[in-house]
Amino acid sequence: MTLDTPQPGSLRPGGRTARVREAVLRAAGDLLAERGFASLDLAEVAARADVGKTTVYRRWRTPTGLIADLLVDMAETSLPHANTGSLDGDLLANARLVAKTLTDPRQAPLFKAVIAAATCDEATTEALRRFYDTRLTAWLPCVTAAISRGELPPETDGRAVLSAVSAPLYYRLLASGDPLDDEVATAAAEAAALAARAGLFTSKKS
Amino acid sequence: MTLDTPQPGSLRPGGRTARVREAVLRAAGDLLAERGFASLDLAEVAARADVGKTTVYRRWRTPTGLIADLLVDMAETSLPHANTGSLDGDLLANARLVAKTLTDPRQAPLFKAVIAAATCDEATTEALRRFYDTRLTAWLPCVTAAISRGELPPETDGRAVLSAVSAPLYYRLLASGDPLDDEVATAAAEAAALAARAGLFTSKKS
Repeated sequence: MTLDTPQPGSLRPGGRTARVREAVLRAAGDLLAERGFASLDLAEVAARADVGKTTVYRRWRTPTGLIADLLVDMAETSLPHANTGSLDGDLLANARLVAKTLTDPRQAPLFKAVIAAATCDEATTEALRRFYDTRLTAWLPCVTAAISRGELPPETDGRAVLSAVSAPLYYRLLASGDPLDDEVATAAAEAAALAARAGLFTSKKS
Repeated sequence: MTLDTPQPGSLRPGGRTARVREAVLRAAGDLLAERGFASLDLAEVAARADVGKTTVYRRWRTPTGLIADLLVDMAETSLPHANTGSLDGDLLANARLVAKTLTDPRQAPLFKAVIAAATCDEATTEALRRFYDTRLTAWLPCVTAAISRGELPPETDGRAVLSAVSAPLYYRLLASGDPLDDEVATAAAEAAALAARAGLFTSKKS
């Protein structure tokens, strides 16, 4: 979106660049979701996006370069954190959002594909880390607010709390294959809130 | 190992087959750990295992066929469940075992590779599901014993409890990249025990 901002004294010069990026990332995401990352091909992405092959090769160079940029875009479009007034409400909203993403017919295979890609390439690993850093950081205010309300110990590690909410959902998606339904999301949120209140997510410095 | 059992009236006919499988799976695991699954090549596995290429192609056919058999072997070599006499002790033992595996210089990249492979191939997905099914099932007696001791509600779902122990560790390995140390393993075990005692992992039938 930032690329789309008109520059002074020009006729929307960022316009085409931004539209090309949007089309290419959309095509890359579709192909990743349909077939996984192992068969991602820049020429095919270009054809699907209706963009010149040379443009795609020049700008993204490799499939992993394209996936890294897709992760930047995915981080930018993360939904803002909930503000329900209670830790339980906020964590439940977070769990349901993650569960919705990981059961979505396009998003679920897309997340599998980018996580798989990250296992094979260092730059993609870094992009994936930054993506989760952005996602976790965006929701930290829920934990900070709970601390302010006296719901949680002051030294609670918000990242650990939010990781505890997401983790059981990702474990089902990537490892066990067990169902990922609203009951599981609710239990994940409640378990994380309970453990956080008990002080299990504070840094135990010796 | 079962293939290595001498048959009556023969000179260890299963011996060579079992040794070939062991060498091939060892080589496949090493190569997966070193370079990820995307570049797994049967000819290279055969060379590394010092086994004829034809034998490897005939028996395993494809890289994913080989990964599926590796997962069968990994499930067979799972460590037995702990029996410390308390839920806390058993879950801590489980968390430490999983954390040790997922931080091991060979096992960590190997687990990433087989999970990545499972995102691209249906048969490998099935093999991965069966692997986690074996692992989770092997530790269910810890939850059953805790129920018998009155530590947990009778209708507690043992799979959900054990998944809750593993999940934060896998989330760090595959998604966030946050450190995976003994403090995290301990918190995962304690949080799972606390949530299980609170009845969060019982099936809420309406």
